[in-house]
Amino acid sequence: MLSRTELLRGDFLHVFRDQVRLPDGATAQREYVVHPGAVMVVPLLSVSDRAAQIVLERQYRYPVRRTIIEFPAGKIDSGEDTWVCAQRELREETGYIASEWARAGVLHPVVAYSTEFIEVWFARGLSAGERQLDAGEFLDVFSASSEQLMDWCRTGEVTDAKTMVGALWLQNWLHGAWALDWRAVQSEGGGA
Amino acid sequence: MLSRTELLRGDFLHVFRDQVRLPDGATAQREYVVHPGAVMVVPLLSVSDRAAQIVLERQYRYPVRRTIIEFPAGKIDSGEDTWVCAQRELREETGYIASEWARAGVLHPVVAYSTEFIEVWFARGLSAGERQLDAGEFLDVFSASSEQLMDWCRTGEVTDAKTMVGALWLQNWLHGAWALDWRAVQSEGGGA
Repeated sequence: MLSRTELLRGDFLHVFRDQVRLPDGATAQREYVVHPGAVMVVPLLSVSDRAAQIVLERQYRYPVRRTIIEFPAGKIDSGEDTWVCAQRELREETGYIASEWARAGVLHPVVAYSTEFIEVWFARGLSAGERQLDAGEFLDVFSASSEQLMDWCRTGEVTDAKTMVGALWLQNWLHGAWALDWRAVQSEGGGA
Repeated sequence: MLSRTELLRGDFLHVFRDQVRLPDGATAQREYVVHPGAVMVVPLLSVSDRAAQIVLERQYRYPVRRTIIEFPAGKIDSGEDTWVCAQRELREETGYIASEWARAGVLHPVVAYSTEFIEVWFARGLSAGERQLDAGEFLDVFSASSEQLMDWCRTGEVTDAKTMVGALWLQNWLHGAWALDWRAVQSEGGGA
């Protein structure tokens, strides 16, 4: 990196342009969105022989002009632990509190023009409670089977990349190919 | 949508802010990147009993400050057919020409703040040729097994969301759960 210019400080999007040195010595520009990072939760209502009942959301997403089926997800608050964020987002968006959590991994939704990463968490031992949506947030919470989710990924009913990555994790975990390391929540709503 | 403001016309990023009406009648703002759309190619060198040898790229991605393993992908040129784009990107980035193609589906990498969609194509019947990288494009092309790709998705060596969606498609196609509809290219480098 040779120099940096702030191109845009919007209410939501924060964009920079950096002057960079390439491997061949030439200079080039890189424009990208700076994002605090996010978490996504795969909430398991029940699990039986290679299938699960999961919690999903249906939400109108303005940039793509359509209603999108997604796993619960949200941005990390400044300084917030990602596990605490996962618990907060699940509770706020769906009302559910989970007794056990496992961190599956991390994904980068758009490596070409955003710093965003999304940590993928699994949650089980769910108990229902009250949602606390942000102002201006409108979303439907519903449950579906893992088979239904896979079918929606195949047919194009589900197109959200993070949710499809959640489906990849869910499928491989349910089939015993990928392992999850579960940890119990010590106090309701708090960390370990 | 009530009104639209162009916030940024960068060399790469094009950002708008729209004033929108919410379901409850309130107004809100939506900031998002306008993107022409892209294609990703899952190139199959060989396929045998539930496993495949595939072509991947390793490329330093500035926004996330790391070298990312990805399937070949690129933006759609204005007015370009997505199948033609898939053939062009595969040839330019890897040198490969494929005799058969199948469109798997579409994904949205970041529904919260970009209009971007990525069409997912599979390619087989590969013959090697010369790469034609864009100026300032530096990437390594290599081959790996589908088992290796799945392992990298599990361990976090692969974190690129579109590539993980490609892995989801590849896994389910190889196991016979999801079908692909193959079409032959009629003339080398052109459309059907």
